[in-house]
Amino acid sequence: MSRPTVHPVEPPPARDVANHHQYQPRVRMKQVQGMPGTRGGLTLRALQVAFGVVSVSFMATTSDFRSVTAFCYLVIAVSLQILWSLLLGIVDVYALMVKRSLGKPVMIRFFAIGDGIMSTLTFAAACASAGITVLIGNDLNRCSVNHCVKFETAISMAFLSWFATMPSFLMNFWSLANSQ
Amino acid sequence: MSRPTVHPVEPPPARDVANHHQYQPRVRMKQVQGMPGTRGGLTLRALQVAFGVVSVSFMATTSDFRSVTAFCYLVIAVSLQILWSLLLGIVDVYALMVKRSLGKPVMIRFFAIGDGIMSTLTFAAACASAGITVLIGNDLNRCSVNHCVKFETAISMAFLSWFATMPSFLMNFWSLANSQ
Repeated sequence: MSRPTVHPVEPPPARDVANHHQYQPRVRMKQVQGMPGTRGGLTLRALQVAFGVVSVSFMATTSDFRSVTAFCYLVIAVSLQILWSLLLGIVDVYALMVKRSLGKPVMIRFFAIGDGIMSTLTFAAACASAGITVLIGNDLNRCSVNHCVKFETAISMAFLSWFATMPSFLMNFWSLANSQ
Repeated sequence: MSRPTVHPVEPPPARDVANHHQYQPRVRMKQVQGMPGTRGGLTLRALQVAFGVVSVSFMATTSDFRSVTAFCYLVIAVSLQILWSLLLGIVDVYALMVKRSLGKPVMIRFFAIGDGIMSTLTFAAACASAGITVLIGNDLNRCSVNHCVKFETAISMAFLSWFATMPSFLMNFWSLANSQ
């Protein structure tokens, strides 16, 4: 509460401007880079897809990933993440092309919930796979008969894909709370 | 945007009330059950501590949890979660006893960041341990020589502890966004 509290009736200028802007959400939302429909948002989606594709490629090219449930789950979860990010990336490209912002609360809610679910799935898959890779590599010392480097690369990329999803989720959730 | 957009200058009543209330954040914050300093918030902290204690107890009483990195990490992460929740539970009890709300943005930011970090650590530990337990139980069928039931109970309780932390985090993050 950095604003003065000695004049409780007079609204502060910053809040006043925000009040006027709530009737023009497209203008207000556009200013936050990283939100859907901005270049920052598109960059985040591109990173999510890129890291996800590298992750799935490395994991799927190991011969024995099918024998471990967590690795199969990683491939499924990151594939879902890729599809979701690709879809929203296309929406971002469309919004940028027609110069239209995606600042409607109903859309932000949809994006926030989707990002929340997808990032949780990806993070869970990456953690489960990381636990197993550490078990194989450190606890059992069986990296010689397993594709530890490929597993580690796939898991690192899944973590990076999750890391790129978090700003999307947090920003959407933040502006959803602000729009209420 | 369910409010009318045909009168862009006149502020809507709901927003107006919120504007007046921002000079009395203690009154406004108190109304949201689950926030720090409320009975709902205290209940969430109690659940986090209870599930965490059961989780650590079950994991720590297995003889071989030390040989698996992820299980050690689970014990450490959930112990940190217990300490954090216990600390904030005591703060909640104090706030309830002196009937003082914890609605200051600087405190909510502290709680939101702490809850975010703690819930991420607990969730990561639970997922990593779950991946290994599924590997032992389903993929390798070695539950006969391992404490699968104890592991599963500990992991379920860790997930429940994480599940009880999420409302705390989301509500703190939500009201942090609202207070900006």
